[in-house]
Amino acid sequence: MDRNSIKNILKFLSLVGIIVIAFFTLPLITGIIYKEDITYFALYLFISFLIFISILIYLKNYRMKMKIKEAILSVNLVWFMIGSLGAIPLMIGTHINFINGFFEAISGFTTTGATIYSDIDHLPKYILMLRSTMHWIGGMGIIVLGVGLLSFINPTGSLTLFQAESTGINVEKITPKLKHTALKLWEFYIFLTLIDMILLKLEGMSFFDAINHAFATISTGGFSTKSASLGYWDNNYLIIWTTTIFMFLSGMNFLAHIKLFNKDFSGYKSEEVMWYTIIFFGLATALSIIHFFTSQDSFFYSLTHSFFTISSILTTTGFATLDYSLWGQAAIAIIFLAMLIGGNTGSTAGGIKTIRFVVMFKNLTHQIKKILHPNIVCSIKIDNNKLSCDTVINVSAFIFLYILTNAIISLYLFANGYDAMTSLSATIACVGNIGPGFGQVGPADNFAFFTDTQKFILAIGMIIGRLEFFTVLILLSREFWKKF
Amino acid sequence: MDRNSIKNILKFLSLVGIIVIAFFTLPLITGIIYKEDITYFALYLFISFLIFISILIYLKNYRMKMKIKEAILSVNLVWFMIGSLGAIPLMIGTHINFINGFFEAISGFTTTGATIYSDIDHLPKYILMLRSTMHWIGGMGIIVLGVGLLSFINPTGSLTLFQAESTGINVEKITPKLKHTALKLWEFYIFLTLIDMILLKLEGMSFFDAINHAFATISTGGFSTKSASLGYWDNNYLIIWTTTIFMFLSGMNFLAHIKLFNKDFSGYKSEEVMWYTIIFFGLATALSIIHFFTSQDSFFYSLTHSFFTISSILTTTGFATLDYSLWGQAAIAIIFLAMLIGGNTGSTAGGIKTIRFVVMFKNLTHQIKKILHPNIVCSIKIDNNKLSCDTVINVSAFIFLYILTNAIISLYLFANGYDAMTSLSATIACVGNIGPGFGQVGPADNFAFFTDTQKFILAIGMIIGRLEFFTVLILLSREFWKKF
Ligand SMILES: [K+]
Ligand SMILES: [K+]
Repeated sequence: MDRNSIKNILKFLSLVGIIVIAFFTLPLITGIIYKEDITYFALYLFISFLIFISILIYLKNYRMKMKIKEAILSVNLVWFMIGSLGAIPLMIGTHINFINGFFEAISGFTTTGATIYSDIDHLPKYILMLRSTMHWIGGMGIIVLGVGLLSFINPTGSLTLFQAESTGINVEKITPKLKHTALKLWEFYIFLTLIDMILLKLEGMSFFDAINHAFATISTGGFSTKSASLGYWDNNYLIIWTTTIFMFLSGMNFLAHIKLFNKDFSGYKSEEVMWYTIIFFGLATALSIIHFFTSQDSFFYSLTHSFFTISSILTTTGFATLDYSLWGQAAIAIIFLAMLIGGNTGSTAGGIKTIRFVVMFKNLTHQIKKILHPNIVCSIKIDNNKLSCDTVINVSAFIFLYILTNAIISLYLFANGYDAMTSLSATIACVGNIGPGFGQVGPADNFAFFTDTQKFILAIGMIIGRLEFFTVLILLSREFWKKF
Repeated sequence: MDRNSIKNILKFLSLVGIIVIAFFTLPLITGIIYKEDITYFALYLFISFLIFISILIYLKNYRMKMKIKEAILSVNLVWFMIGSLGAIPLMIGTHINFINGFFEAISGFTTTGATIYSDIDHLPKYILMLRSTMHWIGGMGIIVLGVGLLSFINPTGSLTLFQAESTGINVEKITPKLKHTALKLWEFYIFLTLIDMILLKLEGMSFFDAINHAFATISTGGFSTKSASLGYWDNNYLIIWTTTIFMFLSGMNFLAHIKLFNKDFSGYKSEEVMWYTIIFFGLATALSIIHFFTSQDSFFYSLTHSFFTISSILTTTGFATLDYSLWGQAAIAIIFLAMLIGGNTGSTAGGIKTIRFVVMFKNLTHQIKKILHPNIVCSIKIDNNKLSCDTVINVSAFIFLYILTNAIISLYLFANGYDAMTSLSATIACVGNIGPGFGQVGPADNFAFFTDTQKFILAIGMIIGRLEFFTVLILLSREFWKKF
């Protein structure tokens, strides 16, 4: 690694650092408004700001031009940096150790929403705002990184954000439009957050709760300002349905949304969005029926909370209203399916994602045809674009890595004495950036009981899942470090 | 479906039927020797023989030339036929219903070895022999079907039996040698069974136990003549180590073994066999250490039974000596890994199989290289043969189907109220043709407690796993039935 590489990485980290610190003024303002003790937090922000700005001033004449290896290393390092940046104020404000702070911060930035706090209602307001802000930055970052940076990190990735651009395989094609697209996405992200916030306020939330939940909804994060999560408003049908719909919209490909501004509805007709919608209604209906028949709840109450639950889990948001683990094992099986599937590409949702299942099922159909007609060539189409073999292989490798990562972490937890359900669902909830699972990590529980090592491994799992495996895994290859 | 298709299928089924009935004379002889009440069993064999022979005589001038669709349908139907053929004498001899008999027979023929009997020691000897015989026929059938029939059912299947033939992709290449290879494999299968039987007899088993266990070992079946399985001889180190080694040899690619007859050791140097051996020693060593430290057992006793357990699970045999579920969750995690991996292609073992993991891991390495060098083409080599993209996609589709099948059946069992560990491990144990799992289906338990529907679904799971998914799944496609 030469001097230039270090400068590149340092400049990139400092740029991200300064942006994060800038956003952290939101919790600072919150603390000021609510007259909370934010002296140390303010000092911390000031010192961090000084450090980052010094580096940027020192490197101000250095023109950053990253090579691919530098970009990959930077993206990995940036997660450890922002994890630490978020951990420190949590340590100061709530008297927890670094690993707990790191877990919570990574859970925030990756929009996972798994928490180590048991009594959320009594956390300082600026800490609550800090957690939501981490979600919101994370969600925004994923969208802009997806457009600006990850596109060339994931070169075979026709299934990154650009899927719905209907350019099919060739990512380079849209590079000229990149900046424009990124800006549009940001605008829409902010727009959707504002609308959600205004609606929640009008429907009865305090302004503070509305902004926090809007942040956590649009980023598909899942941190709440209440221990009971959205269950605090379980009888306010307006709030529940609004959140259900906004989670659903946030788990959808944002490129479909921004097309709407040009009065182009075609984005919603893509196979990805179509299947996502079908899966949502299918699972939600099934859960409603199970919920209604296994509980004393009224039909509309069951319907509302079942649609809410599936929307929350499928989009990997992870809000909870009722403790769905009490609706029997058939309900858990349905919710488990939603955990595995996840939302759309081009959104802030995690999980395997709808489009990859579409590709795998089309490939199955193709493989079966191949038995009868051995000489037919690979010809899988998505939205009328032919997928290359390379793309199919890449998707397969992704799913294999997803399962491998989950299997290894689950077996690690299981070997440490947790029951099968807790081990498996805690892992899937973290790697899939969902938040709650089942067993000891159900919607009414938290992650506090894991040891520091286990929390650290789960936090790494969140990062691996967020960066879609390859970007982290490449660090383990010899080729990456050779002639860096 | 025209008249010729029906004739083809009928002739094929009758041929298999007559072979199965011929083998069933082994339990008949057993019954005669031990003076057991086999009147109805003899009558049953006689009637079945008459039916099959009549069909064959009726069709004797009809020259069978199967089209691919007929072959696929036949292979599926044959499993239901032999399942029923095996079920009926079990129903008569042990007073169980048809579904229980079907489950036990399918478990026998697929070499799964999961049983619905709790008191195996007191079953009539001819019933015990019948169970072992089903294993042995099943193992033999898999090898000959693999060579003769499945080769053209699985056209992209460079990873069928022929892997080690070092012909790489092109299955057709070896077709002329097919008959010769099939014969060699059979000879070796019988040879290995005889050696194992003689050794077990010399080491202290009765002749009856020796023949039954040799049948169940070489076929990687796992039915025993004792409720305690091999645990009955847990202090006879010779029997335990002999069985460990013969299970290990039976889980290896038989093509490697038959090369040995030509004094060609190259088969053992294939990547498949090499990785299989590495995984075996790695997992067995890890389990030995865990076993030794979590129990009061002596070092050599721990080593012996841990190597036995890994050999039994990795080869999907499913014999048990000690109740390994008592060695703590770390031990269960190790054994779980062995369940997922499975043995070699070209053997009677089930599971995902070593070579597919080798392909997937090589593909991961390739995908990572591709991030740094986006234009490199797919170039995965196994034993110096380049794999086509089609093969990689086929392997990926296989693993996806394996996981999908296991997920669906597990969630079905879980939704019916079984705990996560029982649901998941019972499914993997059946679909992977292993036998025992964990939870309620541990090595000391049996499958009797499942309802008839659940048993039937698990039996279908065994067939699906045995036929490696595609051969069964194709029946669900519209294309298959169109212009049959
Ligand atoms: K989440
Ligand atoms: K078995």
